[in-house]
Amino acid sequence: MAATRAEMERRGLDVLIVSDPSNMGWLTGYDGWSFYVHQAVVVGPDGDPLWFGRGQDANGAVRTCWMSDDNAIGYPDPYVQSTERHPMDYLAARLHDRGWDRGRIGVELDNYWFSAAAWRSLATNLTSEIVDATALVNWQRIVKSPLELEYMRRAGRRVEKIHARIFDTIEPGLRKSDLVAAIWDAGIRFDPDLGCGGDYPAIVPLLPSGSDAAAPHLTWDDQPMKAGEGTFFEVAGVHNRYHCPLSRTIFLGKPTQQFLDAEAAVQDGMEAGLEMARAGNTCEDVANAFFAVLARHGIVKDNRTGYSIGMSYPPDWGERTCSLRAGDRTELRPNMTFHFMTGLWMEDWGFELTESIVITDGAPECLADVPRKLLVKD
Amino acid sequence: MAATRAEMERRGLDVLIVSDPSNMGWLTGYDGWSFYVHQAVVVGPDGDPLWFGRGQDANGAVRTCWMSDDNAIGYPDPYVQSTERHPMDYLAARLHDRGWDRGRIGVELDNYWFSAAAWRSLATNLTSEIVDATALVNWQRIVKSPLELEYMRRAGRRVEKIHARIFDTIEPGLRKSDLVAAIWDAGIRFDPDLGCGGDYPAIVPLLPSGSDAAAPHLTWDDQPMKAGEGTFFEVAGVHNRYHCPLSRTIFLGKPTQQFLDAEAAVQDGMEAGLEMARAGNTCEDVANAFFAVLARHGIVKDNRTGYSIGMSYPPDWGERTCSLRAGDRTELRPNMTFHFMTGLWMEDWGFELTESIVITDGAPECLADVPRKLLVKD
Repeated sequence: MAATRAEMERRGLDVLIVSDPSNMGWLTGYDGWSFYVHQAVVVGPDGDPLWFGRGQDANGAVRTCWMSDDNAIGYPDPYVQSTERHPMDYLAARLHDRGWDRGRIGVELDNYWFSAAAWRSLATNLTSEIVDATALVNWQRIVKSPLELEYMRRAGRRVEKIHARIFDTIEPGLRKSDLVAAIWDAGIRFDPDLGCGGDYPAIVPLLPSGSDAAAPHLTWDDQPMKAGEGTFFEVAGVHNRYHCPLSRTIFLGKPTQQFLDAEAAVQDGMEAGLEMARAGNTCEDVANAFFAVLARHGIVKDNRTGYSIGMSYPPDWGERTCSLRAGDRTELRPNMTFHFMTGLWMEDWGFELTESIVITDGAPECLADVPRKLLVKD
Repeated sequence: MAATRAEMERRGLDVLIVSDPSNMGWLTGYDGWSFYVHQAVVVGPDGDPLWFGRGQDANGAVRTCWMSDDNAIGYPDPYVQSTERHPMDYLAARLHDRGWDRGRIGVELDNYWFSAAAWRSLATNLTSEIVDATALVNWQRIVKSPLELEYMRRAGRRVEKIHARIFDTIEPGLRKSDLVAAIWDAGIRFDPDLGCGGDYPAIVPLLPSGSDAAAPHLTWDDQPMKAGEGTFFEVAGVHNRYHCPLSRTIFLGKPTQQFLDAEAAVQDGMEAGLEMARAGNTCEDVANAFFAVLARHGIVKDNRTGYSIGMSYPPDWGERTCSLRAGDRTELRPNMTFHFMTGLWMEDWGFELTESIVITDGAPECLADVPRKLLVKD
């Protein structure tokens, strides 16, 4: 809250309307699968933030937020998915009640949970100046606290378990849907070693095989796993909404030279990238080091090679702040956390071998310990 | 496509930009977890629709869409989560290339996947009139085809299996996270009876117990299930993205009078509602019949009691068209499908007993066959 208020002041904002569930959760503790209706946390000029959402979800706000119950404002149900009225009409009236409808109001203009219609409602109902504050809160989240790092390390232990389960389970003939069931089980079931169960990931398991692995975001089917094919597994361990994503590729049978070459290129590139991933360097330093090695191996990767991670809700486990790519000159600071996403999605194959890392003054800490190689099961 | 084009013509739209993944999938077959970046299907004045999305996801479009590969437009990666450029800037230029930047363009103004910034980009880059076409495609989807109904019936068989697994597995002392793992397993693993595996649900399993059941959208924790407590299970079976949601409540031990009274009220109310749920009546007829019986039982439910269902992606398995509530005078037609969502979320308890139904000229078809009662495990 203090960091958010300081940034609001710097930008001359009197009120901030936060629609991103991860920002809502980070500021207030609110947690629930209610983001399919309009909702927000409102940081006003003073006092505790307000939770705003559907009437029936105020019960969830009261149970999860640290503020007084009076700070939860539920809107009546006829506002839900109505063509006649918009929940933001109701919010505008509540801001007016408090005298918070003057001055400058920041909104998350480019966020899944703040639609163009939400903007139009506020712009119509308020005389305030409405300005873009997309990712204002996300940027306050990029350096993780010790508690946040503990959650992420636990998520790291969880993703180790998931990959171990995948490797134990996979074999030619196994239906992909059965492998997916095993992944969910390893991700969620209470684990005595970890002393906890797992939370749901912001992205479902992605595990395309063979030529489908050219497409990074296809979901599963019922087809049997085949010998002579590579499959990448893009999964995350999750603890209290904090994510540790980690990808590995498994080849069933003797890997083709294409996969062995990709493995060598990515391993070398990651070494170079990780060497640069330390406090004082920039995001693009990591990307440039990685891409330079890939290029020496004759591979062109034309998409970013990582992004900040932390607390998240669907549809994305990225924090949507800095990215590891050319042009991103964000300075790396201790306790920033990234998914070093070195995936290759080529014309008719794909390969993923990634790490989630914590920036330190020296070599980065890997949040999970899974062998950094092409996994082969014969 | 024909229905969508006819509605576009009726509204005087030259171009329609569709951002909702379920509408994108329904029109083109596109399927992938890529909706965390800006993407769309564009229906122009003539010819096949265009798929527009991130470059790396064009590989997924080519694999899942029925159109020619040339109709997939990938935007360069530096447009992803950038503060300097917006993917809709790129789309606007492609519309200009085709001469599609004149006349009236419809957009889904109130959709998760069409942010205020997306609107601003199009409004800045195009001279076209940009008008609200929220749910234009969703409304074309409300009467299901025989194939869609087959998918939903399969989803119904799947949700029967999930509820059977829950009832078999639940017992005092079982950690909730372990029960959730069993639910995912029953939802996804290949089932020889059904001849298929399951797809991921648009909402994770919701199963709050005791007083937490007052809050409909809390997710799970590691706490053990307790004797003397009720838990509702709001889950869905899913086949090829088509959902059959269904909720049941389980009481461990001897149910309290409160739960027995709720059961009786909801059972009676559902009978009355289902009696009205037939072609020629309206959505509000069903809701009014249900609420009238609840009121006779002394229960006030102040939220809608159902919504249209079908193909869906996170964060919501509703179709976001008609709702079962007072004021919704949508006429029921054969092969419309609804989740008759009769959940009660009271001050410190909750109860759900629901059905997913197909409208016919006579009594509605229930998509799943699960005993319509409070389930008790002693």
